[in-house]
Amino acid sequence: VSSFGRGGLFGGLFDRGAAGTGDEAWLAAMLDTEAALARALERAGLAAAGAGAAVTAVARPGGFDADELGRAAAQTGNPVPALVRALIAAVPAEAAWAVHQGATSQDIIDTAMMLMARQVLDGILADLSAAAAAAAALAGAHRDTIMIGRTLLQQAVPVTFGLVAAGWLTAIDEARQGLQRIRGQRLAVQFGGAAGTLASLGDHGPRVRELLAEELGLASPVLPWHTDRLRIIELAAALAGACGVLGKMARDVTLLAQSEVAEVREGPSGAGGPSSAGAGAAGAGAGEPGSGGAGGGRRGGSSAMPHKRNPVAGVVILGCTRQAPGLLATLTACAEQEHQRAAGAWHAEWEPVAGLLRLTGSAASWAAELLAGLEVHAGRMRANLDGAGGLPLAESVAAALAPALGRLPAHDLVTGASATATATGRGLREVLNSPDLAARLEAAGITMDQIDAALDPARYLGSAAVFTNQALAAHRARENSQLHDRG
Amino acid sequence: VSSFGRGGLFGGLFDRGAAGTGDEAWLAAMLDTEAALARALERAGLAAAGAGAAVTAVARPGGFDADELGRAAAQTGNPVPALVRALIAAVPAEAAWAVHQGATSQDIIDTAMMLMARQVLDGILADLSAAAAAAAALAGAHRDTIMIGRTLLQQAVPVTFGLVAAGWLTAIDEARQGLQRIRGQRLAVQFGGAAGTLASLGDHGPRVRELLAEELGLASPVLPWHTDRLRIIELAAALAGACGVLGKMARDVTLLAQSEVAEVREGPSGAGGPSSAGAGAAGAGAGEPGSGGAGGGRRGGSSAMPHKRNPVAGVVILGCTRQAPGLLATLTACAEQEHQRAAGAWHAEWEPVAGLLRLTGSAASWAAELLAGLEVHAGRMRANLDGAGGLPLAESVAAALAPALGRLPAHDLVTGASATATATGRGLREVLNSPDLAARLEAAGITMDQIDAALDPARYLGSAAVFTNQALAAHRARENSQLHDRG
Amino acid sequence: VSSFGRGGLFGGLFDRGAAGTGDEAWLAAMLDTEAALARALERAGLAAAGAGAAVTAVARPGGFDADELGRAAAQTGNPVPALVRALIAAVPAEAAWAVHQGATSQDIIDTAMMLMARQVLDGILADLSAAAAAAAALAGAHRDTIMIGRTLLQQAVPVTFGLVAAGWLTAIDEARQGLQRIRGQRLAVQFGGAAGTLASLGDHGPRVRELLAEELGLASPVLPWHTDRLRIIELAAALAGACGVLGKMARDVTLLAQSEVAEVREGPSGAGGPSSAGAGAAGAGAGEPGSGGAGGGRRGGSSAMPHKRNPVAGVVILGCTRQAPGLLATLTACAEQEHQRAAGAWHAEWEPVAGLLRLTGSAASWAAELLAGLEVHAGRMRANLDGAGGLPLAESVAAALAPALGRLPAHDLVTGASATATATGRGLREVLNSPDLAARLEAAGITMDQIDAALDPARYLGSAAVFTNQALAAHRARENSQLHDRG
Amino acid sequence: VSSFGRGGLFGGLFDRGAAGTGDEAWLAAMLDTEAALARALERAGLAAAGAGAAVTAVARPGGFDADELGRAAAQTGNPVPALVRALIAAVPAEAAWAVHQGATSQDIIDTAMMLMARQVLDGILADLSAAAAAAAALAGAHRDTIMIGRTLLQQAVPVTFGLVAAGWLTAIDEARQGLQRIRGQRLAVQFGGAAGTLASLGDHGPRVRELLAEELGLASPVLPWHTDRLRIIELAAALAGACGVLGKMARDVTLLAQSEVAEVREGPSGAGGPSSAGAGAAGAGAGEPGSGGAGGGRRGGSSAMPHKRNPVAGVVILGCTRQAPGLLATLTACAEQEHQRAAGAWHAEWEPVAGLLRLTGSAASWAAELLAGLEVHAGRMRANLDGAGGLPLAESVAAALAPALGRLPAHDLVTGASATATATGRGLREVLNSPDLAARLEAAGITMDQIDAALDPARYLGSAAVFTNQALAAHRARENSQLHDRG
Repeated sequence: VSSFGRGGLFGGLFDRGAAGTGDEAWLAAMLDTEAALARALERAGLAAAGAGAAVTAVARPGGFDADELGRAAAQTGNPVPALVRALIAAVPAEAAWAVHQGATSQDIIDTAMMLMARQVLDGILADLSAAAAAAAALAGAHRDTIMIGRTLLQQAVPVTFGLVAAGWLTAIDEARQGLQRIRGQRLAVQFGGAAGTLASLGDHGPRVRELLAEELGLASPVLPWHTDRLRIIELAAALAGACGVLGKMARDVTLLAQSEVAEVREGPSGAGGPSSAGAGAAGAGAGEPGSGGAGGGRRGGSSAMPHKRNPVAGVVILGCTRQAPGLLATLTACAEQEHQRAAGAWHAEWEPVAGLLRLTGSAASWAAELLAGLEVHAGRMRANLDGAGGLPLAESVAAALAPALGRLPAHDLVTGASATATATGRGLREVLNSPDLAARLEAAGITMDQIDAALDPARYLGSAAVFTNQALAAHRARENSQLHDRG
Repeated sequence: VSSFGRGGLFGGLFDRGAAGTGDEAWLAAMLDTEAALARALERAGLAAAGAGAAVTAVARPGGFDADELGRAAAQTGNPVPALVRALIAAVPAEAAWAVHQGATSQDIIDTAMMLMARQVLDGILADLSAAAAAAAALAGAHRDTIMIGRTLLQQAVPVTFGLVAAGWLTAIDEARQGLQRIRGQRLAVQFGGAAGTLASLGDHGPRVRELLAEELGLASPVLPWHTDRLRIIELAAALAGACGVLGKMARDVTLLAQSEVAEVREGPSGAGGPSSAGAGAAGAGAGEPGSGGAGGGRRGGSSAMPHKRNPVAGVVILGCTRQAPGLLATLTACAEQEHQRAAGAWHAEWEPVAGLLRLTGSAASWAAELLAGLEVHAGRMRANLDGAGGLPLAESVAAALAPALGRLPAHDLVTGASATATATGRGLREVLNSPDLAARLEAAGITMDQIDAALDPARYLGSAAVFTNQALAAHRARENSQLHDRG
Repeated sequence: VSSFGRGGLFGGLFDRGAAGTGDEAWLAAMLDTEAALARALERAGLAAAGAGAAVTAVARPGGFDADELGRAAAQTGNPVPALVRALIAAVPAEAAWAVHQGATSQDIIDTAMMLMARQVLDGILADLSAAAAAAAALAGAHRDTIMIGRTLLQQAVPVTFGLVAAGWLTAIDEARQGLQRIRGQRLAVQFGGAAGTLASLGDHGPRVRELLAEELGLASPVLPWHTDRLRIIELAAALAGACGVLGKMARDVTLLAQSEVAEVREGPSGAGGPSSAGAGAAGAGAGEPGSGGAGGGRRGGSSAMPHKRNPVAGVVILGCTRQAPGLLATLTACAEQEHQRAAGAWHAEWEPVAGLLRLTGSAASWAAELLAGLEVHAGRMRANLDGAGGLPLAESVAAALAPALGRLPAHDLVTGASATATATGRGLREVLNSPDLAARLEAAGITMDQIDAALDPARYLGSAAVFTNQALAAHRARENSQLHDRG
Repeated sequence: VSSFGRGGLFGGLFDRGAAGTGDEAWLAAMLDTEAALARALERAGLAAAGAGAAVTAVARPGGFDADELGRAAAQTGNPVPALVRALIAAVPAEAAWAVHQGATSQDIIDTAMMLMARQVLDGILADLSAAAAAAAALAGAHRDTIMIGRTLLQQAVPVTFGLVAAGWLTAIDEARQGLQRIRGQRLAVQFGGAAGTLASLGDHGPRVRELLAEELGLASPVLPWHTDRLRIIELAAALAGACGVLGKMARDVTLLAQSEVAEVREGPSGAGGPSSAGAGAAGAGAGEPGSGGAGGGRRGGSSAMPHKRNPVAGVVILGCTRQAPGLLATLTACAEQEHQRAAGAWHAEWEPVAGLLRLTGSAASWAAELLAGLEVHAGRMRANLDGAGGLPLAESVAAALAPALGRLPAHDLVTGASATATATGRGLREVLNSPDLAARLEAAGITMDQIDAALDPARYLGSAAVFTNQALAAHRARENSQLHDRG
């Protein structure tokens, strides 16, 4: 049993989304496909009346032994032939013809992959919707919460935490749009038979394909896509894009949660999260000073180091999202498939498709919890900004002095004052208010009130609020149009 | 000078698209951005009248020294600050303020990347349009050209070459759609200033951004996207998807062109291709027996081995497309960017974005030429199919016998006959016509005419023609809607 | 439960190596590490006498519930803290202190990963040893089996199948050497405590680390390597290198097994392989014409298409090996780890390390079986070569004529004759023996015997036999030195 | 002209190593190979006396037009055939036969790639040697410089900066070892002719190959490795491993240089770095507030924000190293090569091999400069640690109290005190010294001196100094053994 599926040692971290991608999910999706095909054949008049229902009745995962199918798969390269044999054996004789008729193994596995993808995408979209709602709430609540902006990991100029959260929101909404496009347009039935001609169905191929697509609620493609894997690449890219967006948010959270920054902190385990592991022996933490023993079941806590609350959700999100680029590369490379059906490149897709679905689902689930519970320390944000001694406002001051001093002299004066401030550890205001400079400014008719205004970060936020509002408006418009679509 | 840019040792192979991605292209795009910004500032009333035109007048690549800018870039991490200084030095004093006002280096490089992407995408779309037209012509012309279908690199059941070409066509059309979506919706201006607030423009930020977008014909995004890199992932994925589709086609061509298969052959260098290298000393080939010395300038030819015509276009397409997955992975991984602007992940994007554009452009250019000139050997296709001795039609024969013999006995009889045919090297018809079996078939009222009908591959093509027609119809509908869009 | 672990739907394909990488393997390795640490602490005089044995006694996977540990892992980001609590609860009070003392979670997981890697590497090395032996046998047996060499998928000049197999052999031996280097030198114990100082052990850290390494038979590194992940990259690269080598061999086999080439064929399922899936309903194959229904349990067979034997092993090897580059990229990217222990990049390693071990193990297992059972059709090889009508020997003929005709005239004559042969479909000998040319050759004193000698591929094999012998000698030398090392 | 080669817009950042990988480097290496082959043929008695010298005399890059060769390459898929023609035309007639005799294009390009790799590796090894020396100096100088260790980006327990630098040192030394192994053992001559048999040389193939290897100072492999690409994977993995190690160091530096941490800072541009871009117009920075305009040529400086010094070297190193995993994946995937010479996978290698060499070379060059100039702020390190109010020493205190209080009560007391300290913002000492607790401790016979000792980070460094010394000793041993090897 692998360690990275539902349950097990690592499942709480890496298989946390609503829908599974393990054996049960695969088997259910393959059986759903076979059952839908039987119904489609019956509707097309190619199978006996009742055959569809008969196959559907037995096509339940519980009736099949995954281990046995897997052993048989080693003879043929995939588990479908053995599944078909088992299915035929399970249905009444008169329904046997309806089983798998016209299909090749790849038709079943590819269609099942689409069904599984739909299931997982629905879970991801729900989690991302919750994550977006939480980000929107943060953006709205902190529209005016001033903090220092950071570029190249250096303090730069003031921003607001509202704008930061709006950035997460917009990115998540864009990722949702990409996933919804795939969900709505690119999940298609696969049905082509041995070499894409559906020869064994004579003239009935296209009709059966339409009915199969209808039964499953999947798109009916122009052609069988046995060796046209663009939709796999597009699915994978949309998932990896979502991972990219969530990874950026998690990176920000882990950086803002650094002990020295301390502007945000992950909340305790949310209602939606896995339940706490419980008591925890008192001694456990003793040997585990730095790794966050789960003393007392508090998320990310460490019994030995009470000042430490590890950003577990952020860390595990990164643990998921950092696996996405490699899986996407594998799937993109696999598009080079030979002739009518490929020798290996197709087989190499199954695991990365399932893995990418699972990891994105886990990251989205963690993200929804993280954002819903995020603690924002506005006071610390302000303190960190103030700790920069006014230097992030140097440009603002220079602009304020320019009308009176001329642009270049104003710039030079502020540059000099800033250098002095940096060298001496004094604040920029203090330097500007030192005898020499104060006299010069006074002579030019500049008051300390004007200086103070220029040093006020709240007056140097540019379009932060406007941008935040625009992002929130775009989010609401998007939500409304979705409600409309559903309604 | 790198080897993989325009011109040079490898440029004829890997930098073959219509638009460049080298220094000239970068520099032109950065200057176009700076000039558009100056015009936008003037239109917003923030710069002196005439400043936009003044900056635009000097913003030409010829006036700047890329090597010098590159040396300066080592001080700041990118070439923009030095470019800005040079630009300021080049414009009249009254226009100097309009240079780069409100912008940060990343605004310029990201916007330039979008402009360059648009340029290259236009070239790619033109080449893919030509490739699609050529594939459509092949599909139409060979709708009834029967060949053996191959799965897992084994002969399977009959298909048509028209269906094969229709498969390439549909895939290319899907890839075009993805690229057009990016081209039309996701190429956006970047303009946020130091930390995304446009603080130095006071309240004017949003207005200037709109005007800048208008000047450049790019979308205006909800927010600055300094560290929201989803559109880079989407661009890269659409390019890599196109590579995936072209790589599949090239793989098919190289396989069908194998000496033992010989069903297609690349044509001589097309009109659109690079001109021949000319004469070639008689002795050159002597030392180059197997590598296709270009004796006489014939594409893919080898003077020493006149039977050999290497599928150069297919091979070089694969040489391009196999680099795409890794570059896509790099760009996807780079989406994890810190805070307001990233420390390294952004810098790591420039080269893979340019490389992916260039390689996709080259692959598309090669593909257009390859498909336009492809030689199709219908006779050899038929011969290869016939060489299989009727075995690909075994299933067809069994179906024909079933009404008279019953389904299971029919299946068993054909299975036995096929095994005999394989073991003895005789054709399936001959085996079925052997005394024993012939008597049994005759007794069941089955004539050799019926057998021959079942052995006729033309009668066992299922929906091949219908599918081909559907693919062609979809292609035409798409082309018409595009014409409509343009008209 | 994931689908890609031991057993299950896909385990017969993708989890086929001797050693597992699933929950059981992880849990066993983590417990082995904790037990060894307890023994090391005791030996260092830091734990009560008998503590090591006491911990060792209970450190068995059966006593722990992976699902429960996994649920707890969601609180701390990894399953170790919960495992430690459970272990403490299970040991006598006086041994409790010896549990996990001095260690951090990463010490346990990293060391466990090394132990698991060793286990899997041993299985891989055994399978690769068998694969190499089989390749060596093929090389020896077919030293003089002539076939056509192919470049860029075109027939080129003659080679031998012995040389082809020698190429596989040498590559596999090189890959083994890389894996053995990792196995012998780079699998190291991890033991640094919270931040790499082993502070809670006072001065005893280095001593305990030496003893721990001794207990586990792993190397003791210069420093804790919590955030120095080079050995992970090296392990992954050696595994991916082995995959690269096996993928090349599998690609050759699938190409040589193409119906039109038919020079090799995979044998029926070998003794070491998974047993056949058994009977299979007669009807199963009917709906599965092209995908190789396992009718009758014959590997790769198709009941509907008896002429088809799919190269299942080759295909599944490629299904494994094509996943390696992406996993290697993920692990390489994860080397960028922060400070003393990383926030996410470390967590992202667990699954790709396990996956790469498992997939390489499966590919090696398949390869051993494939090579041991490979059917080589020397007659078909000769027929394919002869089918080229002497053109692969054109260069040889030109060289033979040069002394009499002069080098350039000889070249021109053969080029012309070859072109005629290609255009007319006649053999090169026939063209050279046509009245005009025969007269000219006779006039120059060249006999048809000389021509025939030059057209004999057996005389134009250059160093094929020498190279094959050298490869076999290198293989034997390597095997002997290993025996010597063991002895 | 591409932007990422020597010189040009981005060359100062991404093509900064000692040796080039552009057209000139390729051309020189290909010509060196052809010249060495001519000399080898002469030495083997296969070419006229003086032929080797004659070819060598004209085999200089200046004599050939890369653009023209590149145009011709489009006919054959690579530039060698045209180069051979040009070379033949340039040599005296009697030497013409010695040109390229026995070789195929791939022999020349692969061998040239090895020569280029050697050149670049030598530069990388020199830069890494300098980087290691600088790291060793830092480790030695800061053996006792105490700082807070950080795990999951949270403050954990004390470490020393000496240990941090020792970690960089050990990792760099390991990476050097890997590169040296490749440099010494795996760079091999390629020489097999059309299909690896060297048929056109009759029996002389092996001898010529030995001589060629001798001429070039490359290893002579067991077999031609046209389609055995393991050594390419190994080269790429060693380079990517070096990137991984340098990226880790650069990540640490960028994090430690964060404004809020400020424990290290990059020095001004070092002597070995590219020279400053010079003056810079006063106004340049005005529009570039946050991006570090190069005002005054100070590395990483920003004229508008004098408090800001961007970690340019660290950022650009990450810009290089983040591209490595994708390139490594491409090269690993390319190992699946067909038959005797591949159709595309080989062509796809040229650019990523050159790119990986160049980017690793640039990262190494930047790293040498960064480490040599790194400013370490020991005072700030101590201040950051002290700012944690004793909490990182909680475990140390608990251990000190245990003898008197019992282990569990001691743990509980400290946990409670730490929680109070965190909640109230008071230091741990202050809390422990509050009336209630002080009384309890006094009652147990514990003095505040004992508490203060336990709170002294210098006493809770475990093996930090020992480990640092071991790392330095290992480094010295390694350097000595290298000197010995050379001497």
